[in-house]
Formats: sequence, C-alpha cells, structure tokens
Amino acid sequence: MSKHSVSPEIDRLISLLAKLPGLGPRSARRAALALLKKPEALMKPLALAMGDAAENISTCSTCGNVDASNPCNICATPTRDNTTICVVQDVSDLWAMERAGAFRGQYHVLGGTLSALDGVRPEDLNIANLIRRAGEGRVAEVILAMNATVDGQTTAHYITDHLETTGVKVSRLAHGVPVGGELDYLDDGTITAAMKSRRPF
Amino acid sequence: MSKHSVSPEIDRLISLLAKLPGLGPRSARRAALALLKKPEALMKPLALAMGDAAENISTCSTCGNVDASNPCNICATPTRDNTTICVVQDVSDLWAMERAGAFRGQYHVLGGTLSALDGVRPEDLNIANLIRRAGEGRVAEVILAMNATVDGQTTAHYITDHLETTGVKVSRLAHGVPVGGELDYLDDGTITAAMKSRRPF
Ligand SMILES: [Zn+2]
Ligand SMILES: [Zn+2]
Repeated sequence: MSKHSVSPEIDRLISLLAKLPGLGPRSARRAALALLKKPEALMKPLALAMGDAAENISTCSTCGNVDASNPCNICATPTRDNTTICVVQDVSDLWAMERAGAFRGQYHVLGGTLSALDGVRPEDLNIANLIRRAGEGRVAEVILAMNATVDGQTTAHYITDHLETTGVKVSRLAHGVPVGGELDYLDDGTITAAMKSRRPF
Repeated sequence: MSKHSVSPEIDRLISLLAKLPGLGPRSARRAALALLKKPEALMKPLALAMGDAAENISTCSTCGNVDASNPCNICATPTRDNTTICVVQDVSDLWAMERAGAFRGQYHVLGGTLSALDGVRPEDLNIANLIRRAGEGRVAEVILAMNATVDGQTTAHYITDHLETTGVKVSRLAHGVPVGGELDYLDDGTITAAMKSRRPF
C-alpha cells in the first residue's frame, strides 16, 4: 500500500503474502489482517512452521519430491514397489496421487513440462535423471501421469522417445469420464476418448 | 493431508495456511508448494515478516486500528483533523479509505457489526469507546462508513441513537452509482438511491 498511515511491518507482510499463488492484493490484505488479529494463535505458529520448513525441507535428489529427508520418505520406504516409476509434473501431483492412494510405487517429479511458449527445454526439467533411473535395470514400468494438456502430452512423447533404449514399459493414465462426472459437462475430446476406451459391462 | 508420505513439517504448514481467509485446502497446498520452492527468497522472509508483525503490531487503544505504535500513527498524527471520526467495521475498511485518500480525519474501528444471527451484541464491538470519544467535546462530526448491508445499517442506527446525547453531527456515506459502474449491472436499491440523491449537472 505504501501509505504512511500503514506501518512498514504490515506493508511488508502484505506484499510478501501477495506473492503466494492465488492471493491477489485484496486477498493478501485480508490474510494479513486475519494474521494480525490472531498473533498468538495463527501468525506466530505459521511463522514458526515456515521457518521450520525452510530449514528442514529439501528436494529429493532421487525423485524431485520435497521432504524433510533426502532421499525422501517415499524413495526410502522399502515396502513400496521400486520397479514402477510414476512421472508427474509437480509435487502437487505427487500429493494428489498419494491422497488417492492408487499407487504404491516410486515417483519422479519433472518440475514442469516442456513448453515452446515459455522456453522450457528438456534440460530445464528433471528428465535426464528419469532416463538414468529407468535404465538402472530395476525398473520395469514408467507410468506417465502428466496433465492432459498439449504441453503435458508433448513432454510425455519426448520422454517416451528417450526411454525407448532402456526397454522399460511406458504407460499413461487412462482418459475417460471422471467418477461422478456428467457427460453434458465434458469436452468432446474426453467423450471421444471414453468411447474409444469403452469396456465390457 | 496426514498421509505418511508427506512430512509432518509440510502437513503443518499446509494446515496453518488453510486457516487464512480465501485459502481452501487446495490453494493452501499450492501456497505451501510455492513457499517450499523458494525457501530463501520467499518462505524465510515471510516467516520473518510474520514473526516481526506478531511481536510489534498491536491494536490501537484509541481507535482499534492495528499498528506498530499505540496510539496508532493515524491517531498520533497532529496534522489530521481530530474533529471528525470516520466509523468503519474493520481495519480493512480503514485501509480502503486511506488508499482512496478521501479522508484526513480520525477513525474508529468497530471490529464488526451487530448481528442477531451471529449473536454479536453492542458490548462485543468497540462501540462504548466511540460514544466516549465522540462525547469528549473536541469531535464535531461522526461519519458512519459501515457496509450498506442490513447488519451494517442496523449498527449505524444503533450508534446514531447512542450519539444523540453528545450533540455531534452524524452523517453517512452517500449511496449511488459506483464510478465506472454500469446501470445495467446495479441492483434496484442502488439505482433508487442514486435517483433520490441526484444532483444538478
Ligand atoms: Zn524421493
Ligand atoms: Zn488509533
């Protein structure tokens, strides 16, 4: 705000909060105010949690996940299937897979997708490590779980091409009608894909 | 998330961020990830700013504003008109008034509105202090700048009644067409109010 009537401490808090995704200037002000109203119950605990996370959380050098240990808890859990690697764009996608509980193998976080528009090249992503991991002999299948966007699919094709020499099986998530989804609200591509992949009832 | 695959530090960060207004579980996860990706550039500075604000910011015992000093910078600025008090629901409204730069008097922050539904009574708000301030002799006018909602207007009526004995002039913000607003998008009440308060052109 930079009005002399607002203290620099509050100004700084607002402008840092506004850098969080999904918070515009207005919601950053609302968030700052909510924090200022609960200094003990919310602001101090959050400050501590952030300081703690900043000190203790790092990127797993094996898979690209973020965790308090390196290798991360997923890479280090011996009961997880280490013959299968699920490739995701971002840590948030890894979290989504874990919430769904539909996968008990290993992950590989790319850190984005190839994008001609945004100038993201293969060397900007965690791809070389994936090719290396997949070629280590232990891995039988790489599941590509990128978003069903143009960039996501371009990235999937690029990775598939570069995994060819390793001989591992490459698969991708199925397209189809989301559970609970109504046909009327789906785009044509999804309906077409669901129709093509139809299964006996 | 409370999956063992996510570290407790990250879990705690997400659940505290989810307590901020406007952040649901999904946006809290996105915010946490943005912080985790920038530990030095964003997370540590924000943790420091929060710790700093939690230590240094308090509520002004005169007007209810939040600031690094008490009385707040606005109450303590001698060049501001101290014969006029603008009454607002919340500190965010005070900030909005200051951004607009349309007022150079003093404020009084109620901390909400009366609400039968939410069980907010006069003693739950910063009203008694307002009546006292208004009665101190220095004050000539109290401007009621509550939201144009039922609760806001109920509160305005309550305050007006209790200011009667002080003899100060009580006014409220004008209703009308917002600057840049299109008639077609306005509710009937606003159009009616704008028509009633029409001014010579
Ligand atoms: Zn890992
Ligand atoms: Zn004050």
